[in-house]
Amino acid sequence: MSRITIVGGGLVGSLLAIFLAKRGHTVNVYERRGDPRKVDVYAGRSINLVVSHRGWTALRAAGVDETVKAITVPVYARMMHDREGNLNRVPYSIDNKAIYSVSRGELNRRLLTEAEKFPNVTLHFDHRCMDVDLQNATAHFQREEGDHVVVEADVVFGSDGAFSAVRQKMMMGRFTYSQEYIEHDYKEVAFPANADGTPKMDPQCLHIWPRRWFMMMGLANQDGGFTGTLFMPNTHTENAPGFDTVRTPEQVQAFFKAHFADALPIVPDLMDQYLRNPQSSLVIIRCNPWQVNGKVALIGDAAHAIVPFYGEGMNAGYEDCKVLNDLLNEHGDDNWAEVLARYAAKRKPNGDAIADLSLRNFVEMRDLVADPKFLLRRKIEGHLQAKHPDKWLPLYSQVKFSDIEYKDAWKEGLRHDRIMEEVLAMEGVEEKWEGDEVERRALELVRSI
Amino acid sequence: MSRITIVGGGLVGSLLAIFLAKRGHTVNVYERRGDPRKVDVYAGRSINLVVSHRGWTALRAAGVDETVKAITVPVYARMMHDREGNLNRVPYSIDNKAIYSVSRGELNRRLLTEAEKFPNVTLHFDHRCMDVDLQNATAHFQREEGDHVVVEADVVFGSDGAFSAVRQKMMMGRFTYSQEYIEHDYKEVAFPANADGTPKMDPQCLHIWPRRWFMMMGLANQDGGFTGTLFMPNTHTENAPGFDTVRTPEQVQAFFKAHFADALPIVPDLMDQYLRNPQSSLVIIRCNPWQVNGKVALIGDAAHAIVPFYGEGMNAGYEDCKVLNDLLNEHGDDNWAEVLARYAAKRKPNGDAIADLSLRNFVEMRDLVADPKFLLRRKIEGHLQAKHPDKWLPLYSQVKFSDIEYKDAWKEGLRHDRIMEEVLAMEGVEEKWEGDEVERRALELVRSI
Repeated sequence: MSRITIVGGGLVGSLLAIFLAKRGHTVNVYERRGDPRKVDVYAGRSINLVVSHRGWTALRAAGVDETVKAITVPVYARMMHDREGNLNRVPYSIDNKAIYSVSRGELNRRLLTEAEKFPNVTLHFDHRCMDVDLQNATAHFQREEGDHVVVEADVVFGSDGAFSAVRQKMMMGRFTYSQEYIEHDYKEVAFPANADGTPKMDPQCLHIWPRRWFMMMGLANQDGGFTGTLFMPNTHTENAPGFDTVRTPEQVQAFFKAHFADALPIVPDLMDQYLRNPQSSLVIIRCNPWQVNGKVALIGDAAHAIVPFYGEGMNAGYEDCKVLNDLLNEHGDDNWAEVLARYAAKRKPNGDAIADLSLRNFVEMRDLVADPKFLLRRKIEGHLQAKHPDKWLPLYSQVKFSDIEYKDAWKEGLRHDRIMEEVLAMEGVEEKWEGDEVERRALELVRSI
Repeated sequence: MSRITIVGGGLVGSLLAIFLAKRGHTVNVYERRGDPRKVDVYAGRSINLVVSHRGWTALRAAGVDETVKAITVPVYARMMHDREGNLNRVPYSIDNKAIYSVSRGELNRRLLTEAEKFPNVTLHFDHRCMDVDLQNATAHFQREEGDHVVVEADVVFGSDGAFSAVRQKMMMGRFTYSQEYIEHDYKEVAFPANADGTPKMDPQCLHIWPRRWFMMMGLANQDGGFTGTLFMPNTHTENAPGFDTVRTPEQVQAFFKAHFADALPIVPDLMDQYLRNPQSSLVIIRCNPWQVNGKVALIGDAAHAIVPFYGEGMNAGYEDCKVLNDLLNEHGDDNWAEVLARYAAKRKPNGDAIADLSLRNFVEMRDLVADPKFLLRRKIEGHLQAKHPDKWLPLYSQVKFSDIEYKDAWKEGLRHDRIMEEVLAMEGVEEKWEGDEVERRALELVRSI
């Protein structure tokens, strides 16, 4: 059995600790921030996340799915809000599958408590990683109180997020790396519950206000409230406003009135929140290699930070942990060089694929969900899937409701695009989409493209 | 007049200091390493570089072209060495233009001495940049002796190379960044002069041993020797060796005998050098934005590290300095917000273009220069240029012998490719390339493509 250092005790680091502790390794987790069970490390921000199929697969393998399930809210559909306040509910799947909304802080606290139940796990908070020796898996930490801690181990995992200190050290060598900020920033706004604790909107839907150049979404919390997130470019253009032109109370009021009028009455302190809450940016990070010398490896956002539009960031990180655990089952617990090389080779293409998929889903959420052609495509795909489940699984279902590798889903999704382009070009498809002719044509294309 | 901090006293930092000192600014240059006039900071490595047209334009504007010229060797042609030792000399231009080989260390020493002649320039060696405050242009340095120096200024320039500390600080914000290592590493080998100081090969040629999957080149030094550089992937493939399969004395001997037989007799200590000299990697760095708040800007490799195959890395950095100087002429010396914004906007697309061009020239040097079709194309282009200099300037000449912006040269180069593809597809072009028909067709294409 090995001595493992995990740098970062967030969502992925805490689950990884559980996986490795169950195997019998000695695990030390070092987290830069304080213990989120004692201090509010999220500074009052109510970020929430979605657990979906891959996340559950990993949580189940680690034996912690039940404790997590208890703090989630199932979400079965997208609810689109148009400018006039009209609603359009579009289920995520034809067979009532759900994704599960969860508070980041609450999930992190649960997993840390689960990890700490293992006698071979020790959690260390307020330890900032300063350096990692890639040759011998020795990590250096600075404590809040100023003293320096040197930790020797057999393997170091960097699960320290998008701005990973472990990765920083790997960048000094031959390391391919990119960070790319998308044009859109975001700002969170909390939607309160009614006075009696009941929700003001359907909590089992992801609410979306798609406005082409910008969008707002709302995801339910367990307390009956929602976390609303506005995504918008910082800089306005001829076509659209930006955070730079929605600054003053008058501008904010006019902006919400024009574009999100139905949200105004349910967020009474919208103006205060908008002016107070920070504007944050969104980054995509890709890098290679994910491991060095069988000694140091990256996992989760440290290896593949992505934009949040598919709700897969955490799920991808959890799948990393599950794949690593499977490889340890297959190749043994003292064969880290082999296991980490295979882990990196298997996961890197999937990290790239989910990065691409997440960007694509941004376009879909912001733009296409308000497009009749897109909605028709969804209906045709649902119809096809219902009649031929062995021949057609929509891309969204592959990503959110299956364990199909992201890279294969992405490839299949591009093939679906080509097929559906042909189908949607059929004369009169709007009327006859449920008919035999469209179905026959689609199946023909499935075989030939 | 402003207080300027320049981080990095290498090739670009020293020239930038001269430009700004001439304008009357107070310039402090902080260099991480020791003074190269006193200590051998290049650790015995004999890196040499090429000064070409853009470099001269900038050096002339700074008034230091003559002192630099004195330490260069003009290079008029590529000399291709095939496996049998046959030579093929291909001039760089039809009108006897040259590029100029120079030792990095010698050039750096000269420019530091020139910079130091200005009373308003102070050079500080052994100062490592630890932090830069992007809001107020305050830089923090750690001295060799351990003390910490805080330097306030109006503007900070990061001319601190591919692994820039200034850029590191900018990356903390909304900053797009990529570093990409190419597959090929390199290793330097010094080719000695004859005992009487005369060169063993034509010093006015860049010698190239193109071998498709790898290549060697040799560039003359002033002492009659050459700096040889072997470019090869680290990892071998089915088709070709890599540094990983050319390791032992036996392997090295066999490798050079098979591929570079004519170089063996002129480098008697080849084996020692090969086994002793480091294997280095090649990185391409792109980032954006190049300046923040009109307070901190990147210049040279810090903004655009490229592969060395066009010999333009330093020239691109010198052109950065010249463009900055022109903008100061145009917009005044106390208008840094305006000047740095324009500098970044103007130079960033050119940095991207020379990065692309340099990769392209790698393919050309490694591969195409041994291709008869490519050599024929060069001849046709030379013929066209001679007869119609207003209509045809080959890409190489645009990059190396003109001040045409890199981005425009790149665009024009891609147009040339399309034109020449058509010309080379003409029936019997091998025989009639100097004839009227080929010329007419080419001019037709120049007008229409």
